[in-house]
Amino acid sequence: MHIAIIGAAGMVGRKLTTRLATAGELTGRYIERLTLADVVPADAPAAFKGNVEIVAGDFSGEAEIQKLVDARPDVIFHLAAIVSGEAELDFEKGYRINMDGMRHLLEAIRHAHDEDGYRPRLVFTSSIGVYGSPFPASIPDDFHLTPLTSYGTQKAICELLLADYSRRGFVQGVGIRLPTICVRPGKPNKAASGFFSGIIREPLVGVEAILPVPDTVRHWHASPRSAVGFLIHAAEIDTMKLEGRPTLTMPGISATVEEQIDALRNVAGEKATLLIRREPDEMIMRIVASWPERFEATRATALGFRADASFEDIIKAHIEDELQK
Amino acid sequence: MHIAIIGAAGMVGRKLTTRLATAGELTGRYIERLTLADVVPADAPAAFKGNVEIVAGDFSGEAEIQKLVDARPDVIFHLAAIVSGEAELDFEKGYRINMDGMRHLLEAIRHAHDEDGYRPRLVFTSSIGVYGSPFPASIPDDFHLTPLTSYGTQKAICELLLADYSRRGFVQGVGIRLPTICVRPGKPNKAASGFFSGIIREPLVGVEAILPVPDTVRHWHASPRSAVGFLIHAAEIDTMKLEGRPTLTMPGISATVEEQIDALRNVAGEKATLLIRREPDEMIMRIVASWPERFEATRATALGFRADASFEDIIKAHIEDELQK
Repeated sequence: MHIAIIGAAGMVGRKLTTRLATAGELTGRYIERLTLADVVPADAPAAFKGNVEIVAGDFSGEAEIQKLVDARPDVIFHLAAIVSGEAELDFEKGYRINMDGMRHLLEAIRHAHDEDGYRPRLVFTSSIGVYGSPFPASIPDDFHLTPLTSYGTQKAICELLLADYSRRGFVQGVGIRLPTICVRPGKPNKAASGFFSGIIREPLVGVEAILPVPDTVRHWHASPRSAVGFLIHAAEIDTMKLEGRPTLTMPGISATVEEQIDALRNVAGEKATLLIRREPDEMIMRIVASWPERFEATRATALGFRADASFEDIIKAHIEDELQK
Repeated sequence: MHIAIIGAAGMVGRKLTTRLATAGELTGRYIERLTLADVVPADAPAAFKGNVEIVAGDFSGEAEIQKLVDARPDVIFHLAAIVSGEAELDFEKGYRINMDGMRHLLEAIRHAHDEDGYRPRLVFTSSIGVYGSPFPASIPDDFHLTPLTSYGTQKAICELLLADYSRRGFVQGVGIRLPTICVRPGKPNKAASGFFSGIIREPLVGVEAILPVPDTVRHWHASPRSAVGFLIHAAEIDTMKLEGRPTLTMPGISATVEEQIDALRNVAGEKATLLIRREPDEMIMRIVASWPERFEATRATALGFRADASFEDIIKAHIEDELQK
């Protein structure tokens, strides 16, 4: 089996690569070849016995994506995107990377399908950003998509394209709407959602973290480990069971900031929580106020997608995967 | 005021042109100039005193649309589309005309906005084809979009783009999801929905019509006259009232085929109804079974959009507008 990952150098892409390389198989088939595509060269996985091809380029363009599809990978994970904040600041880049990139990929697959019946599994990472407030307390699977950002608009359009190209039989598409990934490893970034990870990640290594919102703010989380599990499961499920609606909202953990801090206390003790400094930021508070708090994720759960069991488990996964390596 | 109509040679485009030319004004402003754009030359309206420019070309392409936007029309009605059946048969043409055409238009407007602050009113005709079964008996405004055709997918994508470009301040967008237009004047066509008009239009002129579905089939209708009224109202409403959700499901008349035939009897007598020949068609029955029956259209109604009062009124409007000219 040949697997291609577009966006392989990103955080989730790297973890997915490691997981696939370690497992050595997907849907019971031996992985002979991994193509790792991104705008910068991805790292080769250490534990992998098969062929690894590392390709760096602009995979939102037609030429690079054509080469990737020419190799007829059996499974394509399309994780590449620019994030919400950047898509809002750079309108053209957002549409080019997040929307045109997906369309070029789907078009290359469609032309390959016309040539030789090629019909790969395509796992696409969407986002809960396709939803816009006002929200009910718990958002059902059939809630309407009214994105309030260009990023959310681009992801919603990709979902529509994925559904139509799948319905027409050109591709076996599965879209997964990821929760906010927490605890995101690495350095603090400028994303408005960054503090959800920061208030856990920084105190665990003795560093102060800023909390810009009240403790009552509730949000929807999944660990990087769960996100990788969702991707693998999306590559393995029977697409007939999607009944023409190939994008699924993933399960997650709904937690308030207070519950996050309680979990941190339970895992790492009171002194960790004392490193959280409350510094209200009106702009971040306003942005976060329009974010969803909880999803029902009924379809995904019925199809076997599994989230973390608790926010404590999210913290423990971070410690195991990032701090005990 | 300068008004441009893209798709001016189509049935709704012609009626809209006539209405605007006759009124001579929109939102209380004198119409000095009409640009009538379509792939074939539109007819100049007889009653109009201002300038009329008739332009024929491919307005899904960047070059033609750029010229149109260069003239900075105050209001643009974008009605151009290929229909559902053709978009399903010709995948590439459907995306090119129905999706790329809208994107090129929005991009040309955005670039003009960057140049000189241009921000026209853009009225876009969407369709109830953005919805997919299964449906509740009456579909609320916040029902999710799960199109089951490429046409519906393309229209849903256009709605998302319209919302994002409007939110960013490039355009004052208003999208209207039209009901099935009934009674559609002219010759029978091959659309699966054609019989809804045929069973009224043909008997009124003494010609037999085929009814391929049971009398119990219920569907959602608006007269061409109402459709034009929706377009005019969409050009005149305060877009602030749209609250970031610029596409509205239009009100209509929900009627069973039996109710259509009863209305025909009331308007034109029993002998007209005897010209309806029942000839069940399994394929059309299957297609129509997945169509919506009724919409709540709460938002549009609150914003002052008005449908026909009854199916009898739909028939009377057809007689007045088409048979008594």
